Amino acid sequence: MARIEHIAARLFRVPLKEVLVDAKHGDHTHFELITATVRDSNGVEGTGYTYTGGRGGKAILAMIEEDLAPMLIGRDGDEIEALNDAMFWHIHYVGRGGISSFAISALDIALWDIRGKASGKPLSVMAGGAGTSCKAYGGGIDLNFPLPKLIAQTEGYLARGLNGIKIKVGQPQLAEDFARAAAIRSTIGDDRALMVDANYSLSVPQAIEAARGFLDQGILWFEEPTNPDDYKGYAKIAAETGVPLAMGENLHTIYEFDMAFADAGLSFIQPDASNCGGVTGWLRVAEKALEHGIPVCSHGMQELHVSLMSGRPDGGWLEVHSFPIDEYTTRPLVLENARAVAPEVPGTGVTFDWEKLEAADDG
Amino acid sequence: MARIEHIAARLFRVPLKEVLVDAKHGDHTHFELITATVRDSNGVEGTGYTYTGGRGGKAILAMIEEDLAPMLIGRDGDEIEALNDAMFWHIHYVGRGGISSFAISALDIALWDIRGKASGKPLSVMAGGAGTSCKAYGGGIDLNFPLPKLIAQTEGYLARGLNGIKIKVGQPQLAEDFARAAAIRSTIGDDRALMVDANYSLSVPQAIEAARGFLDQGILWFEEPTNPDDYKGYAKIAAETGVPLAMGENLHTIYEFDMAFADAGLSFIQPDASNCGGVTGWLRVAEKALEHGIPVCSHGMQELHVSLMSGRPDGGWLEVHSFPIDEYTTRPLVLENARAVAPEVPGTGVTFDWEKLEAADDG
Ligand SMILES: [Mg+2]
Ligand SMILES: [Mg+2]
Repeated sequence: MARIEHIAARLFRVPLKEVLVDAKHGDHTHFELITATVRDSNGVEGTGYTYTGGRGGKAILAMIEEDLAPMLIGRDGDEIEALNDAMFWHIHYVGRGGISSFAISALDIALWDIRGKASGKPLSVMAGGAGTSCKAYGGGIDLNFPLPKLIAQTEGYLARGLNGIKIKVGQPQLAEDFARAAAIRSTIGDDRALMVDANYSLSVPQAIEAARGFLDQGILWFEEPTNPDDYKGYAKIAAETGVPLAMGENLHTIYEFDMAFADAGLSFIQPDASNCGGVTGWLRVAEKALEHGIPVCSHGMQELHVSLMSGRPDGGWLEVHSFPIDEYTTRPLVLENARAVAPEVPGTGVTFDWEKLEAADDG
Repeated sequence: MARIEHIAARLFRVPLKEVLVDAKHGDHTHFELITATVRDSNGVEGTGYTYTGGRGGKAILAMIEEDLAPMLIGRDGDEIEALNDAMFWHIHYVGRGGISSFAISALDIALWDIRGKASGKPLSVMAGGAGTSCKAYGGGIDLNFPLPKLIAQTEGYLARGLNGIKIKVGQPQLAEDFARAAAIRSTIGDDRALMVDANYSLSVPQAIEAARGFLDQGILWFEEPTNPDDYKGYAKIAAETGVPLAMGENLHTIYEFDMAFADAGLSFIQPDASNCGGVTGWLRVAEKALEHGIPVCSHGMQELHVSLMSGRPDGGWLEVHSFPIDEYTTRPLVLENARAVAPEVPGTGVTFDWEKLEAADDG
């Protein structure tokens, strides 16, 4: 048994190189990174983290420092899954998703980092060990990019070795979304994957009309066409058009994922370990995805998800997200032969460059 | 138009007179009160608030101060319903319930206080104006009370003029819950209402067994028998036993209430304006309750809900909660002829005794 002895959390507010826009969140100028570093009684230290699009970071930090850390100190750090449940119930009245899921995630990831370091295992092995690399696609936050810039971004993704491209949709005119999707399809050719993401900006009827146009471009999936709380609306879009649907970045508890699996007619599920309960939460979703025959994919923080995705047998797609958290680590995402490669070091393999983070932080 | 000019939030940690216990949250030693005072460009000031069972207060405060207040400043304070939606979407990625619902609620209530003061209307009139008083019951947090103390508490509720009593259940042995319910039934007689509340500590099969025993005591409702995320589990308990079910204190978004109305087989709904989006959120739930023919009741903060409940036509029950927030206001709950009486002053009618709060605060 290794008792949890010390927890230190930090918040960084990191500016993006340029303003990024999607259909529902408006302008992104920063991402927030909230780190939690845990030390156990054997002296092993692990770091976990979560991130936001620029809002909620101080609330997450407060919940870690005021509510969760005091509860964890002295507990057996080996019992990660039980501690994950204990954290969920400890703050249940003010929790059940939202901020609490982000706070729990950061701490859970830190405990998995310790588990890996203590046992000498990399995260890809702890996640199942199916492999050491996975498919990866570039996920643009590019609704505001003029078409030439969108094409240039796509060519940049291809040059990095990515085999799939996702663009934002939700322009004032649907015809413009179709034209942009068609332009990207012709840029990448017929053999690479094209995905579109509406960030839940459409009504169900709008999404049905949009789906038909995107299907003409051979999309692999249509992501978050409508409100993520409207599970049955998703199923209606899928049933009426046959479009493959993806969602998950806005689902925070296992109950929400259960409802999505049961009612939403999904073809892909995209849990994000930063907001669905950490590695523990992500693996629970991945197990359910396997039962339902729905490939597990990921959202955000590619530097961590590369290990989870590689270790799973599903053959899903890693999102290479436009928040470049990996550039603030000692190992930015590695791509080889159009696949993302998991780190082989014990633990999560995510080591922050604290000096670079401190220099970037303008909070 | 009255622009929102200034917002000041405060956090108080107020000790309870004694430790209170329920089946899922364990010991309550404090409640947290988070206040938000808003001033508009006409110089009208309103105060809203939310509360917790002792956890999450600093995260709520951080979200109000860092994320929501900056967004509200300069906006038209008359457009409360639109601002409620705008707050929901502003922090959607880290929200969709949890901490964000508490933070939004405090600000929304402040805006309703201003609306009432500016228009000269009390909250009961703004809520519908159906009446000026409502039924009320004593809601004990008393799982740890030995039976003599439980009976003494009940006699105290009756002496105050309350016509209904709710006790906590979830003892290690179900027979003990039955014995306690029977003792309270015999204390209050056959004509007063008896409710039981398990704080979601039971499995569905356990709840079915428990429901049958409580029905023998003529309960008005069985509150939160099982996990509030298991809507269909609730429906199963109701269908198999015919027991009237109540829930709502753990539902935070209109989508969660929609699922509860659709799937949970409820007989009573208990929204709490402190955690379902304030007065705006509570009234939206109340409208849906009316459509579904389910009486709207309340959870917690009786000093505010008395106005909402009195203004509605449903004839539901006001919970007189064991967190005595009303004792820290200038008008603790008024009971007359076994009914709770709404204040008649413009606004919410909730005015805090700041000095008393400051003196009690041990945070
Ligand atoms: Mg997305
Ligand atoms: Mg209750």
